[in-house]
Amino acid sequence: MNKSIILHILGWILNFEAAFMILPLIVSIIYGEKSGFAFLITIGICLIIGIPLSIKKPKNRVFYAKEGFISVALGWILLSIIGTIPLYISGQIPHFVDALFEIISGFTTTGSSILSDVEALDYCMLFWRSFTHWIGGMGVLVFILAILPLAKGESMHIMRAESPGPSVEKLVPRMRSSASLLYGIYIGMTFLQILLLLVGKIPLFDALTLTFGSAGTGGFGIKNDSIMSYSTYTQGVITVFMFLYGVNFNFYYLIILKKAKDAFKLEEIKWYFISAITAIILISLNTGGLKGFFSSIHHSAFQVSSIMTTTGFSSVDFHYWPTFSKTILVLLMFMGACAGSTGGGIKVSRIIVLFKTISKELSYLIHKRSIKIIKLNKKKLENETVRSINVFFVTYMIIFASSLLIISLDNFDFTTNFSAVLATFNNIGPGLEVVGPTGNYGAFSDMSKLVFMFNMLAGRLEIFPILLLFSPSTWKK
Amino acid sequence: MNKSIILHILGWILNFEAAFMILPLIVSIIYGEKSGFAFLITIGICLIIGIPLSIKKPKNRVFYAKEGFISVALGWILLSIIGTIPLYISGQIPHFVDALFEIISGFTTTGSSILSDVEALDYCMLFWRSFTHWIGGMGVLVFILAILPLAKGESMHIMRAESPGPSVEKLVPRMRSSASLLYGIYIGMTFLQILLLLVGKIPLFDALTLTFGSAGTGGFGIKNDSIMSYSTYTQGVITVFMFLYGVNFNFYYLIILKKAKDAFKLEEIKWYFISAITAIILISLNTGGLKGFFSSIHHSAFQVSSIMTTTGFSSVDFHYWPTFSKTILVLLMFMGACAGSTGGGIKVSRIIVLFKTISKELSYLIHKRSIKIIKLNKKKLENETVRSINVFFVTYMIIFASSLLIISLDNFDFTTNFSAVLATFNNIGPGLEVVGPTGNYGAFSDMSKLVFMFNMLAGRLEIFPILLLFSPSTWKK
Repeated sequence: MNKSIILHILGWILNFEAAFMILPLIVSIIYGEKSGFAFLITIGICLIIGIPLSIKKPKNRVFYAKEGFISVALGWILLSIIGTIPLYISGQIPHFVDALFEIISGFTTTGSSILSDVEALDYCMLFWRSFTHWIGGMGVLVFILAILPLAKGESMHIMRAESPGPSVEKLVPRMRSSASLLYGIYIGMTFLQILLLLVGKIPLFDALTLTFGSAGTGGFGIKNDSIMSYSTYTQGVITVFMFLYGVNFNFYYLIILKKAKDAFKLEEIKWYFISAITAIILISLNTGGLKGFFSSIHHSAFQVSSIMTTTGFSSVDFHYWPTFSKTILVLLMFMGACAGSTGGGIKVSRIIVLFKTISKELSYLIHKRSIKIIKLNKKKLENETVRSINVFFVTYMIIFASSLLIISLDNFDFTTNFSAVLATFNNIGPGLEVVGPTGNYGAFSDMSKLVFMFNMLAGRLEIFPILLLFSPSTWKK
Repeated sequence: MNKSIILHILGWILNFEAAFMILPLIVSIIYGEKSGFAFLITIGICLIIGIPLSIKKPKNRVFYAKEGFISVALGWILLSIIGTIPLYISGQIPHFVDALFEIISGFTTTGSSILSDVEALDYCMLFWRSFTHWIGGMGVLVFILAILPLAKGESMHIMRAESPGPSVEKLVPRMRSSASLLYGIYIGMTFLQILLLLVGKIPLFDALTLTFGSAGTGGFGIKNDSIMSYSTYTQGVITVFMFLYGVNFNFYYLIILKKAKDAFKLEEIKWYFISAITAIILISLNTGGLKGFFSSIHHSAFQVSSIMTTTGFSSVDFHYWPTFSKTILVLLMFMGACAGSTGGGIKVSRIIVLFKTISKELSYLIHKRSIKIIKLNKKKLENETVRSINVFFVTYMIIFASSLLIISLDNFDFTTNFSAVLATFNNIGPGLEVVGPTGNYGAFSDMSKLVFMFNMLAGRLEIFPILLLFSPSTWKK
């Protein structure tokens, strides 16, 4: 393990976090909030540790997959711990575990909260909380490597470990330029959404925080009822943008490169659309009797877009929906958004490949000698990729089951527990019952909160970096 | 597809079913029940169709994997439909879908019931219902091939399709003799259990039906409160025997061949024991405060043995247990018993292999060139076997999710739905809430009952035979 280069990268993370905290500091000055001092102190801490670490040249630049995974896992944990300091030392969330839960939920773009009264927080804290979504959505380490001159090996291994989805190899050759382009798209969409929200005449503060929550597919609101009290126009804009952030960014990339034909041929995009539309129609029909036709379509579109992109905003308390609609949402929670988007979950492309392996197995059972090739976007998938997707799924389920068991010690009902693990592991936010749209995670024990934090990080980093961090073999010489 | 040989096998199934029905017919005579006529009529139907089909020599004896899967899938469906006739025409269960549900639940050794008042059934019907467990537990088609002179290819493909667990190849060379030996063990254990139950001074009828329910790991009781009103001794005997029937029968086979050393080295046996003991200790501690120490151990041992072997008898209404204990039961439901036992579920050996693939993947991620071999019982597992276990797991989850979605239309709560799919798909019997130990499946719609029937058959036959039956490519020329 090349520890010096990992420390170097961690140093840079601290510097960047200091830079990010300037924004909430400004917000605190505008609103004249004393809690803003906490950001000033934290920026100081970041720079005191970060600058020496980042200045020191690493002894050697050996950087393999292991270093990639460990930098990413440690980087995210460090980012979260530092990000917690302002909330904690300002006394806005006086219990450290709760504050850490909130910030991990922020960076991992989950949006689960331990707060029963969000509106009691200062503006600068609300801003920081939502801003962590925006930072987490774009992927901190990939962002750093888009800016810093890192070697090719480093870029590749970091990108592989931090990016959502089964494989990013196609983007590797043109890594830095393509990363910059992707950030260009991300930032452009952010500005567009802010603008459109302002057209709906909501305050700038609301427009900013809601946009951060949508862009990172995070879901922290700044009101106790999430998005329920905003106008239909505002909810509509958010519906569309959540959906757009859940699209595989390769799609936009191809469109910008004027390869629209290739873009629309991506199977993941096709199934992402089909799933969304099917879910919206089914839920509209199922809830249609509740409040009229248009309202049904509006709210089911909002909820489907929010849940399948793993954002977690609520325009309505779906706790009162029929079980069929809730079950659709639960299944969408498992599926999640596209790979290469800011969303979480198992990812549409993995689900597609899993279905294809079943059909391959069926024909294999009948004709032992038939070797059916699994294709995605008309290209053969390597056996290695297929296997790793299968193993991902198995690992996912085993972590899910273990988490469910540990948190059941708190003796909440089964539906609460199941949906709480689902909502944190897939970076969604709200679940059902106690952790439903109008509930929160505050009543769980610290032990359960630690499990949820593990789930959120494992979910955001697609499990393996975090597992490797805790695997003894990683640390053996 | 060689249809003539499949019809030939189906003919034999009918003949055997006619033979099986002689027993409930005798019971009806002893108790002087008129409903017994229904068995006489059904025996007639079986023989009228069965004898001509079985006498006719098949045109050719070509028999591949496809024929094996289809014979098994069709065979089980035929067996169930014929088995339903007595219940239906006697008017004991007047709704055909309900009667079919009950018998499929019987043959698949599930033990889920649509009856709210089991005790209202005639003795001969109660006997038949429990006896289907015993028949289903031993595997009908393998039983037939143990008796009939079938060719080697037929035996192998049928055994592969009907036997529980990932692979039976080790037994293939000595198929018929080993199948006979396995049935010897099964019948021997059955007699021993009946004897030990009689020692506890319960009626012979109870001893027989309870033994059938344990041996097949089925779980149909003959009282409305399952096993709750029997003595601690009777419950204890059932606890031990359920556990023994859930052991991989290769274990007994090796012991009889005086290879006890090899027998105790089987990893599946080791983990089956460890899981059971861990679960019993955890549940005893968790429920300890409820009714005293001994009672806690007694009931947690009973429930763990019942649930992990997928039997489904209840000595206590675990609905009132803390969520932690219930979650342990839910996880045991997923795991199920050993491969090569009469139990259902994913199977202990599959879970072991799934865990090993994760550890392999972790080391692969770090050292691309390391190829770690997956071993089971100190022998290398073929990649093909590992892959097929992974695909089994994926298929299992997708069927689970689809079933959950369809039955949610009935608008029961999420926990009921989840546990109902779990309990039927893994051939357990009771779930939680509405379908808990004192509940039943009667309130679900016919549509949901069809889904459950599919799940029970797919669970008992390990998914692929039933999937292939509905796959269009199977029927293409």
